Amino acid sequence: MTDTRDIGTIAGVREMQDFSNGLRGEGKTIAFVPTMGALHDGHLSLMREGKKHGDVLIASVFVNPAQFGRNDDFNSYTRDTDGDLKKMTAAGVDIAFFPRSDEIYPPGYETYVDVTELGKPLCGRFRPGHFRGVATVVLKLFNIVKPHAAVFGEKDYQQLQIIKKMVSDLNLEVEIIGMPIVREESGLAMSSRNSYLSPEEREKAAYLSLALRQIKKRFDGGERDTSTLVKEGYVVLGGGSIGEVDYLEIRDGATLRDKALAAPGDVAALAVRIGSARLIDNTVL
Amino acid sequence: MTDTRDIGTIAGVREMQDFSNGLRGEGKTIAFVPTMGALHDGHLSLMREGKKHGDVLIASVFVNPAQFGRNDDFNSYTRDTDGDLKKMTAAGVDIAFFPRSDEIYPPGYETYVDVTELGKPLCGRFRPGHFRGVATVVLKLFNIVKPHAAVFGEKDYQQLQIIKKMVSDLNLEVEIIGMPIVREESGLAMSSRNSYLSPEEREKAAYLSLALRQIKKRFDGGERDTSTLVKEGYVVLGGGSIGEVDYLEIRDGATLRDKALAAPGDVAALAVRIGSARLIDNTVL
Repeated sequence: MTDTRDIGTIAGVREMQDFSNGLRGEGKTIAFVPTMGALHDGHLSLMREGKKHGDVLIASVFVNPAQFGRNDDFNSYTRDTDGDLKKMTAAGVDIAFFPRSDEIYPPGYETYVDVTELGKPLCGRFRPGHFRGVATVVLKLFNIVKPHAAVFGEKDYQQLQIIKKMVSDLNLEVEIIGMPIVREESGLAMSSRNSYLSPEEREKAAYLSLALRQIKKRFDGGERDTSTLVKEGYVVLGGGSIGEVDYLEIRDGATLRDKALAAPGDVAALAVRIGSARLIDNTVL
Repeated sequence: MTDTRDIGTIAGVREMQDFSNGLRGEGKTIAFVPTMGALHDGHLSLMREGKKHGDVLIASVFVNPAQFGRNDDFNSYTRDTDGDLKKMTAAGVDIAFFPRSDEIYPPGYETYVDVTELGKPLCGRFRPGHFRGVATVVLKLFNIVKPHAAVFGEKDYQQLQIIKKMVSDLNLEVEIIGMPIVREESGLAMSSRNSYLSPEEREKAAYLSLALRQIKKRFDGGERDTSTLVKEGYVVLGGGSIGEVDYLEIRDGATLRDKALAAPGDVAALAVRIGSARLIDNTVL
């Protein structure tokens, strides 16, 4: 695939469903990458992986109002349709789905999906309603795009676990594939929100991944006490002096329950506010 | 169809999904009637209608724990698998799906669907969590049985509106068909819970439909004031002396919002506790 070929674009929900029904009627498999646009190399790695999991690769761009809180960055979130289309074309996407917000949430919309326990800790404590909005829009997109497989990034680790749980609990026949975090040279996890950072803030932001690496290093060296490991992470974060730390925690990698003793497969996760950006990162121990 | 032919039975979720995927792969359409068993003529009317809406008719029997409250009649709810199977066979059901509770809600189950506004009034006020349980199990059953059309009774009027709204909001491609209430000669709406009634209680229960008929008669005669209409209904109920009235209300037929003035298409709905039975009934004006 080169970036000179045509990429199909669809905006209508009914048109998308008809298209996907047609593919399924022909026995074709569908791979799906849902995004909020402002695409970076992290997203593109999901799309390249998606190519391996279906005859047709569909990617969506939808900045989902239901997952933003009142004080979140919904209005300032980066929109770059032309740039996104070029990147999707280069990454091998066959159909770009750009649904309209008023068709996803028409007047009187009132149905929401909640993954009740996994949505409570970590980001759930600081962004009430966020994961309800995520689960709801992902379920809707699955019902519209009808994928056999869908690819999500592990940077949003809690989101990935919630989607896996929703798929299992609701008996959806969609294979959920998680892909490793893509990082800048400094270690900073790729994020559309990195664009909010000034050069000085970007230097501070590099300490997020350094804190997680320190925790992983001490874990690999034999330390198991989670409060000791977390304290080591806080030291790297300068006791919070690089930004306001929403959380830095070690939790079970599947259930996200907190633990006194860390074990392989657990996740160390953090969220830190630097300037106007709220950044998240994690590492699996 | 006669009641001597073989009816297929399926209990496993995976087996049901494979069977339905196979039907869809052959281009066959699926009609679905979900029930909690203890089948009566009301259910059978749904099944006979279902025959018209698909090449294959699937009916499920599942007493859904998620829609019963702590003090509800989950444990005493009538179970009659053999009787249900005979009735389903006679009604033309092709596949009877009897899922196991521990496969529908395995340990750690935690995903729920909420239709937030429609679930609040009427029965929602008296049975917290009930409609969340209904919406969740219906969504799961749709994901397992994969119907093109599904048939529900209008006796559970609020449930029917909630399911229609869920289907629309979540972009499900399932046609929802509502069927009129089937009544005994006395006017009593058919219900599995009528079996809880003593002969004396059954006589009292006949006043539920009489109250609704009186409201409809006065509405047809030109009365529009909902509080006047409701008062007339209460008179027929003997001011509540035949049982504890949870509610008797007139509401918009689609949004279930309350109204000062009734209009065609509005619904008069009631719930009354008589002995150990909580009975519901309604009529559309």
